[in-house]
Parts: sequence; C-alpha cells; structure tokens
Amino acid sequence: MKYTIFGESHGSAIGVVLEGVPAGLELDREAMRKELARRSPKGDGLSTTRKEADEVHVLSGLFEGKTTGTPLTLVIQNSDQHSTDYDALRYTPRPSHGDYAGFIASKGCLDYRGGGHFSGRLTAPLVAAGAVAKQLLAQKGIWTAAHISCVYGILDRTWEDVEELKDASAKPFPVLDDGKGEEMRQAILEAKEEQDSVGGSIECAVQGLPAGLGAPDFGRNVEGIFSQYLFSVPAVKAVAFGAGVGFAYMRGTEANDPFEIKDGKVLTKTNYAGGINGGLTNGMPVVFEVTLRPTPSIGLPQESVDLRTGEEVEIEIQGRHDPCVVHRAVPVIEAAAALAACQVLGI
Amino acid sequence: MKYTIFGESHGSAIGVVLEGVPAGLELDREAMRKELARRSPKGDGLSTTRKEADEVHVLSGLFEGKTTGTPLTLVIQNSDQHSTDYDALRYTPRPSHGDYAGFIASKGCLDYRGGGHFSGRLTAPLVAAGAVAKQLLAQKGIWTAAHISCVYGILDRTWEDVEELKDASAKPFPVLDDGKGEEMRQAILEAKEEQDSVGGSIECAVQGLPAGLGAPDFGRNVEGIFSQYLFSVPAVKAVAFGAGVGFAYMRGTEANDPFEIKDGKVLTKTNYAGGINGGLTNGMPVVFEVTLRPTPSIGLPQESVDLRTGEEVEIEIQGRHDPCVVHRAVPVIEAAAALAACQVLGI
Amino acid sequence: MKYTIFGESHGSAIGVVLEGVPAGLELDREAMRKELARRSPKGDGLSTTRKEADEVHVLSGLFEGKTTGTPLTLVIQNSDQHSTDYDALRYTPRPSHGDYAGFIASKGCLDYRGGGHFSGRLTAPLVAAGAVAKQLLAQKGIWTAAHISCVYGILDRTWEDVEELKDASAKPFPVLDDGKGEEMRQAILEAKEEQDSVGGSIECAVQGLPAGLGAPDFGRNVEGIFSQYLFSVPAVKAVAFGAGVGFAYMRGTEANDPFEIKDGKVLTKTNYAGGINGGLTNGMPVVFEVTLRPTPSIGLPQESVDLRTGEEVEIEIQGRHDPCVVHRAVPVIEAAAALAACQVLGI
Amino acid sequence: MKYTIFGESHGSAIGVVLEGVPAGLELDREAMRKELARRSPKGDGLSTTRKEADEVHVLSGLFEGKTTGTPLTLVIQNSDQHSTDYDALRYTPRPSHGDYAGFIASKGCLDYRGGGHFSGRLTAPLVAAGAVAKQLLAQKGIWTAAHISCVYGILDRTWEDVEELKDASAKPFPVLDDGKGEEMRQAILEAKEEQDSVGGSIECAVQGLPAGLGAPDFGRNVEGIFSQYLFSVPAVKAVAFGAGVGFAYMRGTEANDPFEIKDGKVLTKTNYAGGINGGLTNGMPVVFEVTLRPTPSIGLPQESVDLRTGEEVEIEIQGRHDPCVVHRAVPVIEAAAALAACQVLGI
Repeated sequence: MKYTIFGESHGSAIGVVLEGVPAGLELDREAMRKELARRSPKGDGLSTTRKEADEVHVLSGLFEGKTTGTPLTLVIQNSDQHSTDYDALRYTPRPSHGDYAGFIASKGCLDYRGGGHFSGRLTAPLVAAGAVAKQLLAQKGIWTAAHISCVYGILDRTWEDVEELKDASAKPFPVLDDGKGEEMRQAILEAKEEQDSVGGSIECAVQGLPAGLGAPDFGRNVEGIFSQYLFSVPAVKAVAFGAGVGFAYMRGTEANDPFEIKDGKVLTKTNYAGGINGGLTNGMPVVFEVTLRPTPSIGLPQESVDLRTGEEVEIEIQGRHDPCVVHRAVPVIEAAAALAACQVLGI
Repeated sequence: MKYTIFGESHGSAIGVVLEGVPAGLELDREAMRKELARRSPKGDGLSTTRKEADEVHVLSGLFEGKTTGTPLTLVIQNSDQHSTDYDALRYTPRPSHGDYAGFIASKGCLDYRGGGHFSGRLTAPLVAAGAVAKQLLAQKGIWTAAHISCVYGILDRTWEDVEELKDASAKPFPVLDDGKGEEMRQAILEAKEEQDSVGGSIECAVQGLPAGLGAPDFGRNVEGIFSQYLFSVPAVKAVAFGAGVGFAYMRGTEANDPFEIKDGKVLTKTNYAGGINGGLTNGMPVVFEVTLRPTPSIGLPQESVDLRTGEEVEIEIQGRHDPCVVHRAVPVIEAAAALAACQVLGI
Repeated sequence: MKYTIFGESHGSAIGVVLEGVPAGLELDREAMRKELARRSPKGDGLSTTRKEADEVHVLSGLFEGKTTGTPLTLVIQNSDQHSTDYDALRYTPRPSHGDYAGFIASKGCLDYRGGGHFSGRLTAPLVAAGAVAKQLLAQKGIWTAAHISCVYGILDRTWEDVEELKDASAKPFPVLDDGKGEEMRQAILEAKEEQDSVGGSIECAVQGLPAGLGAPDFGRNVEGIFSQYLFSVPAVKAVAFGAGVGFAYMRGTEANDPFEIKDGKVLTKTNYAGGINGGLTNGMPVVFEVTLRPTPSIGLPQESVDLRTGEEVEIEIQGRHDPCVVHRAVPVIEAAAALAACQVLGI
Repeated sequence: MKYTIFGESHGSAIGVVLEGVPAGLELDREAMRKELARRSPKGDGLSTTRKEADEVHVLSGLFEGKTTGTPLTLVIQNSDQHSTDYDALRYTPRPSHGDYAGFIASKGCLDYRGGGHFSGRLTAPLVAAGAVAKQLLAQKGIWTAAHISCVYGILDRTWEDVEELKDASAKPFPVLDDGKGEEMRQAILEAKEEQDSVGGSIECAVQGLPAGLGAPDFGRNVEGIFSQYLFSVPAVKAVAFGAGVGFAYMRGTEANDPFEIKDGKVLTKTNYAGGINGGLTNGMPVVFEVTLRPTPSIGLPQESVDLRTGEEVEIEIQGRHDPCVVHRAVPVIEAAAALAACQVLGI
C-alpha cells in the first residue's frame, strides 16, 4: 500500500490516492468520519476557528461498499477559505514556515494561500488514509493508539498497560491524566492569549505486530520505515523509539529488556526498546514518541525579508491559527503509524 | 545513488554495492582509509579488542582510478574472528540484541556468530560508502561533521559556529570540549570495569545544502529521508532535528527563526529548525542529533529464554565487546548523513 | 515524475496524480484538450458511440496557471454510462478481457461495469498526464510522434525522415500513407459489420533525447523503462525497438548501424537499434513499435464460464464497443512514451 | 527480492547481490552450477573460445547451507582475459555496441575492455541469481523453460503441451525440433566463417503461476514487470506475449481465448493471450518471446569515429566473439523470467 496526498489549503480540494489496498475490505465510512472528527477543531478555543466539514468523497476503488484493489481515491472539498488573509505575506515568508523553502523550490510558483500544500489541513486526507489502514490492521488484531505526552513542558503520566492508551486516545483531549490535560489546555489558552503558540509531544503505540518483521537494512528497517511516515506529518521534528533520548543517560543494565516466558510466549519484562531490536519487531508493542514544534504562525510581529527587494521587513500574521497543534495531531500520528505498520506487514 | 550493505560479522567478507555513483569521480582511496580508521577500535580500552584491518577491495565500478558510473562494489575481508565465543548463545538470545527477532525472521537460519548481519561491524562498509558520498558532496562545497554530544548524561558543550564541528570531528575522541570528553571516557571505562555499557548521542551537521530541496510529502521529505538513513545505523533509537525534543518545551516566540539578510543572502538568525522547514532545506546547516542505546552486550548475567525448550534461562555473554559505541559511531553517522544528503540533492 | 491513474469506467470520475512535476511550467490546457480530443471517438463509425466529454479538472498542483511542484491531480468526470449493459456479464467473464483475472484478484469485489478499472477509458487520464510530459519535453526540444503502422495486416509505408511522423500523427487517422489508411478503415468497418474486431500496431519515435542516458542495468535500462510504460497501456502485447523482431532474421552486417560524423555530431547512418545501444540512448531517435491485440469485446457468441456455478456458458456481449482501438491508441502511446522519456531524463 | 548485478568483463570479479531472499532456502549449489554450465561456451565452434570457469563464491547471506534472509552476494572471479585485444578500440566505438553511449554516459571513464559492464559476461551472475529464483519457484510448483524459437529466420516448431519445453530447454542446443536445430547451427557456423553474426529469438514459458496476480497499473502490470527484466538482458530488442506481433494480423474471433472448465478449473482452450489478461495472470502458462539482435562484434571492417579527433575511421574488431548469442541466452532468459515471476508473486 502506498499513499499520495494531494491538494492545497485554498485550492478546490485535497485528497489522497491509496494504491495497493487489498480487495474485499468493507470500508467503514462511519469509522473514517469519526477519525476525521477527532482532528477537527472543537470550538473549545484551543484551535483555529476555521470550519472544516471534511466530508470524504470516494472517487474510485470502492464498489458496493468494498475495496476493489484498484487505487482508492478519497477527496475532501475545501470551503470556508479566507484567502485574502494571506495576500500580504506572498513575498514575505513567515519565520519557521515552509514559505521560504517552498518559494525557492517552486521558483516562486507556490500557492501561498493558507500554507498551500504545506498546510496542516493536508493531514485530513492522511487521517482518512489512516482510517483505511486501521481497518486493515484490525482484521489482524492490530491497533494503534496515542496520547499527548507533553505540552509546553507539562508531562502526561506514563502508562502501565498498553491498553490504557486506547481509552486515552478516545478522549476529546487525549491524555491519560485529565488533571495534566487541564494544565496543558491552560498553557495553550495562555499562549493564545499572548498571540503565541506552544509545542509538545505525542506518544503512540502499535499493538499486535508479530515478532520478526523488518530487517536491519536501509529500506526494510522498522524504525526507518516508521520514521519516514512520521516525519511526513507537518511540525514533527523528532522521532524516538522506546526509551528514546533517555538511552543517552542509561547503562546497558538499565536499558536491556530481560526476556521472559508468559503464556508460552517469548516476551520482555520491560520494553525500553519500544518493540524493535536490530530494526525488527520483537513482538512487544511498538512504542515511539514524536515531538511537534510550536505552531510557527503567531500573531506577534516577526522579522522577515521581502523576496522581491531583498530587504528585511517586519510582518504580522493575520488569519485564524492553532495556538497548538499537538492535540489535533493525535489521530494524525496514529494514522501515520497505521500506514507504517501496513508497510511493515507487507500490506 | 543507492546502497546495499551485505555480509555477516563472521562470514568471509562484508561490503557494499553503490548504484548510481556519478561517473568520473577520482576516488580518493586514502580519504576512504582514513574514514575507516576513525571507526576502528583504537586500543585505548574504550572499545573491543577485536582487530579489524578493514582494507577495502574494489570489485567493480572503478577504472583507472575513476568511477565509471556502473555499480561500485567495495569489499572488506573478515579476519580475527572468534566464532566459538558465540556457540553458547545460538538458541538463547541476548537481551535487546537483534538475536530473537532475527531468529524468528530467519526461521532459525540466522548466522548467529558475532551478531551476523546485525553486527556493528557492518558499519564499516557504510563508512566506505559514506566516503564516496563525502567526495561527491565536496565537489559542491558541502561537508558533514559530527561530535559526541552526550555519553551517559555527560554533555559536550554547544557550538557557536558550525565550522567548529569540523575540528571536533577530526579528534580521536570527537568532542568540542576535551574536558567533557575526558569525563565521558571515564564513564565508559567505569562501565567497562563493571561489565556494563553506556549510551549517548551524536550531533551532526551538513553544511552547504542549498535552500529549496525536498518536499513536505512522504518519500521526498528531507527529515524523512535523513531519518531513514540514520535509523539504519545499529543502536540509533532517536533522531531529532534542530531543537528536537526541546520543541516540546518551547513557545513559538522562542522556536521561530527570524529571517535576516546577510551578504545578500536570506538566512535565519537562529537555527532551531535545524535547516529544514516544511520538509525542505532552507539553506541553513542541516543539524540533527541521534541517540544511541547502550551496547546490549554486557558481561553481567542476564535473563534469556531457550528457543528450543521455551524455558527461561540465565546467560552470560562472552567475547570482546564495546562498552560504548558512541565514539566509534561518529564517522558512521557522518557517512549516513552524507548518503542522505546525496539523495536529497538527487545524486 | 511518477503517475498514478485511478478510477473506474462507470464510477464517478477517473483521473491521475502526477508527483514530481517540475514547478513553473505554464500548463497549456488547450494543448491538453487537443491531445484528449485525438483519442476521443470521432463519430466516424470506427469507434464506440459512447460520448465522452473528457473535460479535465485540476484539483491540485496548479496555481495561477503554473505548476507548483506539488502533486498535480487531473480529474475527468464520467458520464453517458450505460451500466446496465454489463449486469448480465458480472459472473461470466468475457474471453480475453481482464474480467476473470480481475475477479480472482479482487476476491469477487471487482467493479465489473464497463471494464471498471481495466477499461480503455482509463487511457484518458494517461493522455492528460502525457500532455504534461510533452510540454516538459518541448522545453528541451524533445518531441514524440506516432503513426498506425498496421491494422489487420495492412501496413503503412515506412518513413525516411523522422519529421514525417509529426505530420502523420496530427491526422484524424494517423498514417503516413492515406491510401493505406483508407484500406485500414475498411478493414475496421468490415470487422464491425461482422461483429468482430481487429488488431494492429503503432510505431512511435521520440526525437531529441541526448546520447548517454540510461544504463544496461535493471531499473535504469532505457528499453526496460519504456517497455514498462508501454505495457501499461491496455491491449499492448508486444514492444519492439528499432528493427525489433526483424533482428531474428538478420546478420550483424545488416543490423549494425555504421557511425558517421554529420555537422560535427556523432550519428549512425542507419538506426536499426532504434536509438538505444546497451540499454542507453545513443542520440538517434528512439523508435519502437507496439502491437495491440484485437478488441476482445465482440458481438458474436463466445464461450465463457459461470463463476458462481462453475459451469460452461455461452455469452453475448452487449454495449457499445470499439471494433479496433489502434487509431485511438496513437496519442495514448505517445503519452506513455513522453512519460517514459521524462523518467529517462530524470524529470 | 531485488537484484543488483555488478562487475566488468575484465575487472577482478563480477557478481550479484540479491536482497529479500526468503530465509531458510537450502540452496542447491549444484543446480546453480548446472545453470551456469548451460550458458558457458561449449567448445563446439558456435561460441567464443574464452574459457570461463564461472565458479560462484557466496560472500554473504548463506549459513550452514541455508539462506538467512540477509543480502545474498554471489561472486565470480574473472580469468582468461585478453585485455589488450581491446586497446585499439578505446576511442573508436564498435557499431551497435554500448561503447559510444557508455563513453558519453561515463564522461569517458568507461572500462572499455571486453565491453566492461556491458559485456554479455554479466549474464553469468544473472543466471546465478535466476538459479536462486528457480529454487524458490520450485517450492510452489512453478517452473520456467525456454527454447530457441528462431535463428536467422530458421524457426523451431511449435509445441502442443507446455511440458515439451522442459525437455527442449535441457538440451545442449535447446530446440524442440533437432533437425531445425541443426539448420540453425549451420547458419551460425556459416556466419562465423564469414566473420559475421546472426540474430534470433527465444520463446519461454512460466508454468504454475496462479490466476489473479498483478494489476493493469504501471508498476504492477505483469507484462510490464516481465519486460523490465527481459530488456535488461543484453541484445534483447523485442518482447512479445502470447500471439505477440501476430495480434496485428488477427481478428477478435481468432485472438480471443474461449473459456472452459477442466478438472474443475477455469482454463482457456487456447492461450493467445500468453497467460496474461489486462495485466494480470489468468492461470494459463505465461508465454512470451524475446528477439535478440545479431552480435554486434563482427570481424569485418566497419565504420566508426574517433572520439578524440571527431573523424570517421574504419575499425576491425579483434578478439574472441560469439557469432550468435541466442543459444547461450536460453538459460539467461529463463533466469530473468524466474526473477520476474518472483516479483509477480511478491517473493
């Protein structure tokens, strides 16, 4: 299975083509709708006020409710665009956005409105594609779930049992500890109040992958495969498996996962490795954390340059922005993980 | 350019085939030899006592000293193998090694001796391939350099100017602050003394990539491309660009990189983004940090299972092991980065 | 550049996503419309009576008339579908169609209406994608043109100068010798009269590719690359370069192309090699011929099986079919060739 | 499974790396040796007098006789090289060889000795890789066999039952009709006598592929997949499935394969489609014919150019050449077909 996301934030539509979807899957459109609702702004002040219906139209690959094995094309029409908000910024790139790099790459032909193809809006088709992947994984008893592990330095609690993640991920604000969740929300609202934004991180698990998938080699390495999907999610700047960056502070005696036999199965007592050894799955849950940068769109004045004159200028970003994307990104990370898991499984 | 690494630690040879090497490169064999020497054990007590000559034989793709554009095959013969060290562990996987996952993946047909294809020894051909990539990059004024940023919680200092990394990377123990380097060495020797191991991290920069390379999309995203190369290096468990996991603790005002004009060029005053916005290069140095886990091979008794009987057993790992791989991995990370940079450039 | 064609003959829409289109191309929509018109049925009795407007909607990748470098999505709505024509054949595959293989591959979930994803209708988005490729090639002075070389054994004449192909390809019935063209048309009408169909072949040239592109190796071989694009065109059963199958009847003295210098350039006096030696372009026009099978949809009774009961049955195909697809396939083959040429050039 | 062939005719060694070989295959080295012997010159005057031992060394991927799933590297040392035969031709490309295109592609850095990487000698590792593929296919009851269908216009007879091909392919001069084979041998010897060469064709079948593999789409199309492997064989200039170029002379009533039920299986009474409909396998034998050009190396004087001076010159090719490669190419085509079949099966 291979996906190609297309579209621009203020173009006529965005969407995704999924090639290699196995035939015969009875596509659960309602489940897909729910996944998309998870990433929609909730009107709770934590997100943009742009309204996005995100209704998915199936252009191809589905017949009588089942996938046919031919390319599955999912399209979402754009609406509620305020393109004029962006005219002022056409030649003055917003710091830490893709504007400048995109301008150079496109030889100036970028659709600059609302971030164009760089927009977080493009995560909607990713979630739709992920919904297909999740249904394929479910047939094999595999699921993926995530929670917000950090917003602006406020950490969610850790989990004992991977099943806890399923409950957390289903919440409107997906954390294990709702008290911590409330603190995070406050941090987001404070940042918004000050026309600023905050970063954070998401921890995700894929449960049910059998041992022995992958290889140490480039192109087949499970960590390499997951990371490529995860870094394709806008704002993701770090990907860490198991103990992640904590390994730099550990000794082998702390970091090694002792084996045990449980119900006749080979497991490890701990899972610092995040379910992956030597680039292969070891049968434990694949666990990883991604870090998302603070939204670069902030209301405060910032230093830019005018790409026509080559002069330094100050800009102020108008428009409706997310003071934090972490909470909305939870289903996106799950979607990317589900697609990665399909590749690892050879689906 | 595409590379395929082959070989097993105790097989007859290891090597790499590089496809798509541009023709006409006058291959600097001495430079390649030096890169390989950087990853060789130094006899300073910090590494395995296994002696590896690592002489590279060119089987194909080179004629009269120049690359021909056909597949370039580099082979290193194996020697000084103590294969019997490993017989005891054939069916009792070492915790946090690839042994168990590899056993399952190979249906029990794994070359278990010395880690087989999972061995850190396979990083020698990677360094050789990276030496080719570095020479191709040098033709475009691009270089890559790295330093140890952490060993067992001991942090190297940060740099002001990316050029500092070049000097650091050339040292036998590549750190910016030699005092910190000495502390790190002590930590490694202490771990070794106690038959334990330590983890750490490496920070690397690629200097000279022009702005506008890459795309936000899966398969073309610069962070995604780099991460796939980096996670293919054994022991790497986390990859973070720019401020990396620090973004989870930051606000947009802190994290955004203001633009400036310098010598007529568009630059950013800071480089928290690590040279990448929206999945594309922005012309600043591409900077990232990888975390390497503590060597799983430690001398202390550990809990394993017998894959024949399904019983829990205790094992002790014999053989000559690295109490830390971080210092030897510096040229390996540079090699992976150089290969990734070539892909980003379309070489 | 990579293309993915999606859609089913009687679904809501068909289309193509083109990834990696260079930014800044001022897309000539009128030229694209003309290419599509070339493959449309002409109402001359030689083709199906299905009316296809084939208006191309651009969903993404185009801004202010220029390509942006992001995925370019071209969509054509379906209309004038007579789906009920096909109900009778759902479980009784048409001989030599993709019905049976598709039924097995899709586990019975095939969109069987009008050939579904197997339909020749899917060549419309291919022609649209090819129009983009042609415009990119034109910027480098490269063009592609084709003529019908054979219908039911009636051969078009051969050409002296590759430029002749440009004129021929622009004709409504693209042949070099209109007299032969008239004979071919009669053969098609006769077959139609008898509820039968006829096969034929198309010869195509790509003019302007520089020498030295490609490699002998799998995946980079120019003949291999072209063939993969060409065999993706429905009904193509043979691909032959230069003298093609004639080489089996030749000696080296006849088949070798002597070199000559002309206007300071290295050329060959003949071009039996079809512009390719050892898997690389040699600077001469790349010339090849494809053979297309007779349309399998014929009105006469045929032997099939009922996939539900496993019994042999006789079927009669209703609906509006092409008694020959060769003349309509000329722009399709050019499109496939143009896309292949882009890959060879690294576009 | 993916293969990369490396090496030059007069370099130190040639070989192949096979990635993705399933683990646990007990590699039959003797079967591999026999396949290589089939393509070796027989000392019967029909081939070059160069002696090639073609002993395969396994550098990696095999342990205790079984594949480990890691890259399998097969190396053949070169010997009996007369490199000086080629010095005279360094800057005067041989007509219809890859010399000129290779010179341009390599910016003059080509290993010109004995054809270098373009040499037919590189088909030895292809046959070795094919031997691995054949063993994997055999586990699923799939086999591949070929015969010479034409040499210089002399046609072998056609077969009734695909099993006949197995016997033919095992012969020293693999034809169905030995009388025709004798005529072909005479044609080759006559050409040799006159310092000329002859072309021909090979017909090959893959028996045992189940129905429903592949897709109509680019990259998944079975004809497209096979063709890419087949065109990677030096000298192949045409690939045709089933009735092939004959389709251009046929009507649908002649070309369509009627279905029938036989032993409860869905088959077709004829197999003009060559086992492939709409780009998918239909369960019948996959049958195709490749055309090989006459060896371009002929002893007679030929017109070339001097790439240093840009002047037209006459050359005479020295060295030991094959007056025909068709008979030696039979196991090569089978090898390519076996590798293609593995890809089609997802091995």
